[in-house]
Amino acid sequence: MELEFLGTGAGVPSKGRNVSSTALKMLDERNEVWLFDVGEATQHQILKTAIKPRKITKIFITHLHGDHIFGLPGLLSSRSNQGGNSPLEIYGPVGIKLFVETSLKVTGSRLSYPIKYIEMKNGGEIFNDKTFIVYAGELKHRVTCFGYRVVEKPRTGELLVDDLQKYNIPNGPIFGQLKAGKTVTLEDGTVLNGKDFIGPDKPSKVVTIISDTRYTPEIDKLSQDADVIVHESTFSNDEKKLAYNYFHSTATQAAEVAKRSHAKGLILTHISARYTGRGALILQREAQRIFKNTKVASDFDLFEVPFK
Amino acid sequence: MELEFLGTGAGVPSKGRNVSSTALKMLDERNEVWLFDVGEATQHQILKTAIKPRKITKIFITHLHGDHIFGLPGLLSSRSNQGGNSPLEIYGPVGIKLFVETSLKVTGSRLSYPIKYIEMKNGGEIFNDKTFIVYAGELKHRVTCFGYRVVEKPRTGELLVDDLQKYNIPNGPIFGQLKAGKTVTLEDGTVLNGKDFIGPDKPSKVVTIISDTRYTPEIDKLSQDADVIVHESTFSNDEKKLAYNYFHSTATQAAEVAKRSHAKGLILTHISARYTGRGALILQREAQRIFKNTKVASDFDLFEVPFK
Ligand SMILES: [Zn+2]
Ligand SMILES: [Zn+2]
Repeated sequence: MELEFLGTGAGVPSKGRNVSSTALKMLDERNEVWLFDVGEATQHQILKTAIKPRKITKIFITHLHGDHIFGLPGLLSSRSNQGGNSPLEIYGPVGIKLFVETSLKVTGSRLSYPIKYIEMKNGGEIFNDKTFIVYAGELKHRVTCFGYRVVEKPRTGELLVDDLQKYNIPNGPIFGQLKAGKTVTLEDGTVLNGKDFIGPDKPSKVVTIISDTRYTPEIDKLSQDADVIVHESTFSNDEKKLAYNYFHSTATQAAEVAKRSHAKGLILTHISARYTGRGALILQREAQRIFKNTKVASDFDLFEVPFK
Repeated sequence: MELEFLGTGAGVPSKGRNVSSTALKMLDERNEVWLFDVGEATQHQILKTAIKPRKITKIFITHLHGDHIFGLPGLLSSRSNQGGNSPLEIYGPVGIKLFVETSLKVTGSRLSYPIKYIEMKNGGEIFNDKTFIVYAGELKHRVTCFGYRVVEKPRTGELLVDDLQKYNIPNGPIFGQLKAGKTVTLEDGTVLNGKDFIGPDKPSKVVTIISDTRYTPEIDKLSQDADVIVHESTFSNDEKKLAYNYFHSTATQAAEVAKRSHAKGLILTHISARYTGRGALILQREAQRIFKNTKVASDFDLFEVPFK
């Protein structure tokens, strides 16, 4: 899994940072890309990356401010023009469907794929399949806003083929049965329990996305033991009153979350235009004093999960 | 007057050309900028120019395809954030108001200025004040689409002060009366008719904007004697069947319009992504064989009106 930052600015686009969008690339795990927020010109940013719009299968909208959604109609249209035909799911607060459907209707767009809208009033488990679970949790912004916790399910270890060698097991279904953890009786009467021949679970990953919000205890729940927390950090601690009044967070608050929740890494995004160029490193240094493994994201930064 | 091209591509953004938007800069004439179409990321393009969003007072939408309107909500919001408070007028086909108002409502945006919508079903005179008239005319696209003709009213010539010198006119209101074309009796009984002392009308300008369309005679009407025609040229003459089927024009068709209508200049825009880089010069050369003063526009090109 990798995180690719498509827009790391706050509010309005600037020369240095586009408005919000973060891609969670799960090419090895699912051959999919999930997007968190789609600010205007996200499709333009994607043009400069290796991401293929048709690989985007889920879009999670944190809240309905323009800098988080105005790129959605254009991206959906381009995904259609570029041959995307697999279904797409859009998760977000109530209202996201009206915005997208009105945009498509007014422009007479007929997309080449179906969209399923999952409009949420509260948080909770919003997605669950064989390999992943996603939870949403309500944050504290001026409008309804959700944070997301993406959890990879435990992945069973490999079959310990070396340990089985001495039993001279013929090629065939027995390996599959053992791998599935079943008990098998060999021709010579030996009884083998598959569970004894499976290595330790492979590490599964947790990614937490905390967008526009004041601090609220829900953030800690979403962040618990995460491999990486992507946390908004519109302001520095010097502006903590401003952050509070505008329902935003500081770098210090983000770092405190990461520390308390025993996260492995913290990435700061949604940076106010007042921190131009290397000015944003003020935020990184401020957070690192509390939580060492912190980076401030720039547009097009690509991070492995977990990152070091 | 100047034309600044903010997006010269067709359909979807590419690395070389953004989707449609053209600015008519009337800073000397009105201290205003008028926009024709607002494709996604027009506000991003504007960031790279000297245009101030608060100077944009009128937006003319040609038609409701996404590549011509998806930048509108973001631009309107940023104009508000950046201290714009003068009223804004949006002209366009029926539906543009629903799109904009839904976008603003869903995002809970309260703009710092009022918007007046002028939704059109047919063409005709749509604006008329002391210095300018604007006409709209219906084009032939898959959806309702308007071309625009912007006409500067004749500007009265200067008062010929040198010719008046011998009459020893005292400083004061008499000059103003003569300049207004009135007849004045001087103290010595001399009668002067202001009209005899005013130079020739200053040249006024006509700019025509022809967006997505097949050829239709309405284009000729909108283009008559224009100082410059901005004409879509999605395809070359080799692809004229494709152009027809998709309700678009070729460079040859645009040049024929310019020639027939005795225009002074022609600028080609809305260039298909198939003509990458210098490939677009094919379109320019094709048009120049019919109408010499033709340029193919690139993003950020700035042309004087009239241009040479
Ligand atoms: Zn935001
Ligand atoms: Zn178009």
